[in-house]
Amino acid sequence: MNIVLLSGGSGKRLWPLSNDIRSKQFIKIFKKPENSKGNPEDIYESMLQRVYRQIKTVDSDATVTIATSKSQVSAIHNQIGADVGISVEPCRRDTFPAIALATAYLHDVQGIGLDEVVVVCPVDPYVDDEYFEALNKLSELAEQDVANLVLMGIDPTYPSAKYGYIIPSTKDQVSKVDTFREKPDEPTAQKYIDQGGLWNGGVFAYKLRYVLDRAHELIDFTDYADLFSKYETLTKISFDYAVVEHEKDIAVLRFAGEWKDLGTWNTLSEAMDENVIGEGILNEECSNVHVINEMGVPILVMGIKDAVISASTDGILVSDKEQSAAIKPFVDEINQQVMFAEKSWGTYKVLDVEEESITVKITLKAGQHMNYHSHERRNEVWTIISGTGKTIVDGMEQPVKPGDVITMDAGCKHTVIADSELQIIEVQLGKGITVTDKKKYELNI
Amino acid sequence: MNIVLLSGGSGKRLWPLSNDIRSKQFIKIFKKPENSKGNPEDIYESMLQRVYRQIKTVDSDATVTIATSKSQVSAIHNQIGADVGISVEPCRRDTFPAIALATAYLHDVQGIGLDEVVVVCPVDPYVDDEYFEALNKLSELAEQDVANLVLMGIDPTYPSAKYGYIIPSTKDQVSKVDTFREKPDEPTAQKYIDQGGLWNGGVFAYKLRYVLDRAHELIDFTDYADLFSKYETLTKISFDYAVVEHEKDIAVLRFAGEWKDLGTWNTLSEAMDENVIGEGILNEECSNVHVINEMGVPILVMGIKDAVISASTDGILVSDKEQSAAIKPFVDEINQQVMFAEKSWGTYKVLDVEEESITVKITLKAGQHMNYHSHERRNEVWTIISGTGKTIVDGMEQPVKPGDVITMDAGCKHTVIADSELQIIEVQLGKGITVTDKKKYELNI
Repeated sequence: MNIVLLSGGSGKRLWPLSNDIRSKQFIKIFKKPENSKGNPEDIYESMLQRVYRQIKTVDSDATVTIATSKSQVSAIHNQIGADVGISVEPCRRDTFPAIALATAYLHDVQGIGLDEVVVVCPVDPYVDDEYFEALNKLSELAEQDVANLVLMGIDPTYPSAKYGYIIPSTKDQVSKVDTFREKPDEPTAQKYIDQGGLWNGGVFAYKLRYVLDRAHELIDFTDYADLFSKYETLTKISFDYAVVEHEKDIAVLRFAGEWKDLGTWNTLSEAMDENVIGEGILNEECSNVHVINEMGVPILVMGIKDAVISASTDGILVSDKEQSAAIKPFVDEINQQVMFAEKSWGTYKVLDVEEESITVKITLKAGQHMNYHSHERRNEVWTIISGTGKTIVDGMEQPVKPGDVITMDAGCKHTVIADSELQIIEVQLGKGITVTDKKKYELNI
Repeated sequence: MNIVLLSGGSGKRLWPLSNDIRSKQFIKIFKKPENSKGNPEDIYESMLQRVYRQIKTVDSDATVTIATSKSQVSAIHNQIGADVGISVEPCRRDTFPAIALATAYLHDVQGIGLDEVVVVCPVDPYVDDEYFEALNKLSELAEQDVANLVLMGIDPTYPSAKYGYIIPSTKDQVSKVDTFREKPDEPTAQKYIDQGGLWNGGVFAYKLRYVLDRAHELIDFTDYADLFSKYETLTKISFDYAVVEHEKDIAVLRFAGEWKDLGTWNTLSEAMDENVIGEGILNEECSNVHVINEMGVPILVMGIKDAVISASTDGILVSDKEQSAAIKPFVDEINQQVMFAEKSWGTYKVLDVEEESITVKITLKAGQHMNYHSHERRNEVWTIISGTGKTIVDGMEQPVKPGDVITMDAGCKHTVIADSELQIIEVQLGKGITVTDKKKYELNI
């Protein structure tokens, strides 16, 4: 099975755990099946990690490609390693360009043949293994040419206004599609359901050639590299508008298993296995309270009902569950530096911000290193607090261990390479410190 | 007026803002009358600062002495400066030894005469200036020898079970005391009130000689220094049991002004001038919510009612207001390092804790310095992030400015002296880092 996971944009609906650079699919709140104790890192997995694990459980040979933006690449590698294809969108151009680019990537970079089937699905549904068996089935149906496009139609559990509807021609498990309906109001949704309508979860399969042909019809490009280079010039258009609406030969596979869209704290907390993740105490008078605490300090909750409480280095949310869906405008007002980030080489966490200094804790995974780089407008001081490795500063290599201090003036090129997991307190000093003040260099190690 | 403020022990009822070393009287949550903008430091004052300011407003010549434990001395100097007498209890021995020691201190150290009047009151009632005018009146009554002890009796606003009751002989503003009653249940409290009973708020005045005589009767000591040196051997006994119960000649002054005991988050938040202190956003669906946020990150609250939310480097509390009174057993369970402290020279704040390192932000006030000291089991690295001053390391002086790094091995003596306000990131490195690993030395500067 060739799967393309669409890994969507930054989300603020799960603030403070999601922010401009951490989308909801990277938040670790689902209990791993195999572990029940140890560090939170060992116990919990993210939506991305969960979906990736589930795919590999159902089909260990599956080729997984993630279609995403540049800003997510580090986090993806951090969470599921290097053994995954990534089709990077140079900028945001809606789903048709993204799927066209991923399809060209599969063909030209991964060498997937024109007659092979590709299954596209979002990275963030909360589902069980049955769903991935259905994806396999979807792939088989496309393989058998039952239609040019084979969609998954999700059996509605209530008349939702959040989804588009697929109206099949028959009530069979596999059926041709009669028509599509855009997101309706609730009474209309009920009407669609009475007609046998299914939710459109944005999951579909096709033979690679099919989408590549559509792409060439609509975009003037030669191959993946060419498409990538002109990506910025493409028109924003959804896959539904560009392809689905014009296609007469579409089939749908009915899926009646578990499928949840965890877009708000309310729906997300429903999927949690326990009420508290991280340090938290609820007294007996609490009911229907969920705590997700990424801060290193305890949260004590007394006599609160129907609420979600979430804390990270970015901030603290205390919200009635239903109202948590309306969080976005408030978070938009909170204009804030990103305080925590997952990089391909590890993590960084802002500990302190002053006018002319920022103190950061850097954790490098064993064997990893950051880019060889310099800053124009700040000096830096590293104090190694755990682990071993070596630093390279203006070409000079030096082994480092806990207690070692490295001072770097503005302009000086530097990096650090971790032998074992390496933790560093970095003090940045200067006027107008910004993440954009960074020049990268080649490094041969 | 000579006032002794009793500054009581560590409190956990206002966790996470109060902790083992910060008692509730040091939390800054009351709006200063003169300032309405600027840093929180400039806008808000603590109970201690408020009471001290109020005393000085009513009587600018008042001699203020604070009877307290060793652990509070730094915070007191930090908040109200050096111009205040402090009678330090070497250990806790209840109110009679504490008042005896403070009285001896006033006589032998401050030179207060035997016929002068001393007014004793707790440091933490929430009152307005009228209360301090009543203290002045209390002082005058003692001066006029209306009785050996003159108590303040607070006009009850409800039949409280939290206070002892004073039953006066008459309904006059000043009356002899008929009898005392211990904390009753509510129906009994109502009965006392019907008899004209008043709350005993632990406020009283006496001529210095009177308490000194009682002290010499009950304790074998010569002077303040002697009493101080044998303090640990004294029996724990309250002033009420040791003195008040045996005294026939007691008068009471009726006080009907504002007087609140802010012992719980519920009562404390009622005294707040606004709903949010620190960074906080409440949506319109919130009602009767108070946020006190000492963390540098925003708190967003949506659809929550009748709750107090408080955050500090020690932890986060989210509590129904009424239930907040029952916090203590939960906080006792939270066994935690103190993450923030006010010292006489400034503040320290723990930024990061790892197994073999702790990272701390130190802020020294201009002109201040820490003790000249060494550690046996840890190395330290200082990075100056703002301000100027000088360090002394094993006797060697060195001027310091932002960006300077000072490394100190275990055993090495060190201190830093601030010229302007000085901020330092300190990384402590070693096994089993503890605050008790500290040796102090004399320093002549």
